[in-house]
Amino acid sequence: MPHLNLEYSDNLSELNVDLLLLRLNHALVGSGQFADEADIKSRAQAFAKYRVGTAPGERAFAHVRLAILSGRSEQVKQQLSGSLLAVLQEAIPANAGLDVQLCVEVLDIDREPYAKLRLPAE
Amino acid sequence: MPHLNLEYSDNLSELNVDLLLLRLNHALVGSGQFADEADIKSRAQAFAKYRVGTAPGERAFAHVRLAILSGRSEQVKQQLSGSLLAVLQEAIPANAGLDVQLCVEVLDIDREPYAKLRLPAE
Amino acid sequence: MPHLNLEYSDNLSELNVDLLLLRLNHALVGSGQFADEADIKSRAQAFAKYRVGTAPGERAFAHVRLAILSGRSEQVKQQLSGSLLAVLQEAIPANAGLDVQLCVEVLDIDREPYAKLRLPAE
Repeated sequence: MPHLNLEYSDNLSELNVDLLLLRLNHALVGSGQFADEADIKSRAQAFAKYRVGTAPGERAFAHVRLAILSGRSEQVKQQLSGSLLAVLQEAIPANAGLDVQLCVEVLDIDREPYAKLRLPAE
Repeated sequence: MPHLNLEYSDNLSELNVDLLLLRLNHALVGSGQFADEADIKSRAQAFAKYRVGTAPGERAFAHVRLAILSGRSEQVKQQLSGSLLAVLQEAIPANAGLDVQLCVEVLDIDREPYAKLRLPAE
Repeated sequence: MPHLNLEYSDNLSELNVDLLLLRLNHALVGSGQFADEADIKSRAQAFAKYRVGTAPGERAFAHVRLAILSGRSEQVKQQLSGSLLAVLQEAIPANAGLDVQLCVEVLDIDREPYAKLRLPAE
């Protein structure tokens, strides 16, 4: 915890994904909500098969899903989504030929049945 | 919003994914629940690594996860899942050698912390 | 129902994914919670793009998300996550050079709008 999934359409071909993931993680660390930076597990997936809406025209999306243990306030969640959206916006500038949507969702992981184990490097 | 993820086993090798995504989006537009067709962001992923159950025998699945902003009634959600399942069923006919499962799930996105930005094509 | 998604960083290069999925499914069957073994639909995805935390150093993760129809008790969910974590742990031993995190999350699928169809092999 937390888990972050970045999903995006692969027509965002100039995206520096490694850098974006690092910046998203820094934004999460900077929020002060997570005790150990190593807890933040982020991953990204480009989709070759996608469809935005039904009208013709080139469209793109990038969607961040942040899953955190239940119990945080709406205000904290809004701060988290706002700071992640700002990182997305910086990484994905407006593009002359492309209609781009950026979204950030925050969801709870049910705390009780969450099970975890860490195997440190020896 | 809404976000649609189609996940399927890659032994559904004859699936026309582009057409299926377009039809799923048309079904969502046709529901009348979404003001702007461009809001519908659908993507598909084929899985090469999957396992249905524990018994031997060739099995397949296609699973649609529709995530919508919280606040809609159970009845509206059931109509949405029913219409998406009908689209799946039309796209994936019964197959002589394959035991196929089709599923549609509707889940809420917490409305408060959802953040979004649209960068229109210039 | 149930749906299981295994996500892992692709630096777990020696992982036998097919065997792991089968063992996870056997653990679910063994829980006695699911009437038909064929209902268990598990899939795995390796991520080439991931970032654990912000500090340098090689890190890895494997994350199981189990989605089940709503209505089961916290106790049942904890038993499920515990048994899945045990399977993960057996499949992914401590690795001299790698800091590995194993996680299991259990979440509810809203029962009312869930739609399903099975097309048996003929």
